[in-house]
Amino acid sequence: MITALAGRAPYRVLCLSGSLRRHSANTALLRAAICLAPASLSLTLYDGLAKLPLFNPDDEIEPLPAPIQALRQAIADSDALLIACPEYAHGVPGAFKNLLDWLVSALEFPDKPVALLNASARESEHAQAALREILLTMSARLVPSASVTVPLPGAGCEVQAILDDRAQVAIVSGALAALSAALGGATGG
Amino acid sequence: MITALAGRAPYRVLCLSGSLRRHSANTALLRAAICLAPASLSLTLYDGLAKLPLFNPDDEIEPLPAPIQALRQAIADSDALLIACPEYAHGVPGAFKNLLDWLVSALEFPDKPVALLNASARESEHAQAALREILLTMSARLVPSASVTVPLPGAGCEVQAILDDRAQVAIVSGALAALSAALGGATGG
Repeated sequence: MITALAGRAPYRVLCLSGSLRRHSANTALLRAAICLAPASLSLTLYDGLAKLPLFNPDDEIEPLPAPIQALRQAIADSDALLIACPEYAHGVPGAFKNLLDWLVSALEFPDKPVALLNASARESEHAQAALREILLTMSARLVPSASVTVPLPGAGCEVQAILDDRAQVAIVSGALAALSAALGGATGG
Repeated sequence: MITALAGRAPYRVLCLSGSLRRHSANTALLRAAICLAPASLSLTLYDGLAKLPLFNPDDEIEPLPAPIQALRQAIADSDALLIACPEYAHGVPGAFKNLLDWLVSALEFPDKPVALLNASARESEHAQAALREILLTMSARLVPSASVTVPLPGAGCEVQAILDDRAQVAIVSGALAALSAALGGATGG
């Protein structure tokens, strides 16, 4: 239990997809999680990834670009992050690492609880391991009990197909219950 | 020796910096390499990183965005790549991984000889290892003999300071000679 949050449910969870693809399996997984969220969690999907400028340390001065201010505010307004990120060429997608690069020096990020959903039915261990290393370096508080693999068929996967699959629903619901418990809330749906 | 290129010197080497910072040590290192190049190598600095859109597989259709066409043409027009890339939060900078993401399915990339320069005096092994894994997954032909660490003091490092340091000049010149040899050319300066 993350005691600073105990008793303040519903906890606000910002969902971050690492893919810009319209029919991304990772984004679909997060949308399914939103549908399956227990009453103790309030999930919101971040939709600003495509608008972030490329990170340049020289540009990290006030006033920050508007999309970066909005990103940091969204992080500040959340009690936890739920990330679903694909693997590109055995690495984290550049677009998603770019988002993280803008948060490395953000005061809003350290100690933020983070759960990682892995939507890939195929191997994606390189990117998942790289992501864990990056997030730990950024002082995120990983929540292993809420970080699960959901074996989806890949791009083109629809939200309803996930919701219709009892095994997948069980995995996602279990992860959300674990996240809620970690945040100090009730685990009931 | 990469026999397909033997005897076709000078070999065209495209230099790619992983940093957008104006006073980047990595970019300075590549500029120093350009000054130190032997007659058998013709080095050019790629300067389009900041203009690349964020990679989205949905956008990988003809006609590609102009900056991506220019990037792929620059890769096609080179016999080898010389990469100098910083580490951000134990990972590859998102902006540079974004460039690589646009090359994963490019026909111009596989089998391209690649030398990695590491400009960091501090630890940067996570990003270097991640970069090697990504490049190998993309079917690059890494040239270990030309991949060296040059312990620079960090951002703010100037080209002239590198050229004035005999130890650093020796390391860079050695890497360039090794790259030239690997490409099948003369190693003389």
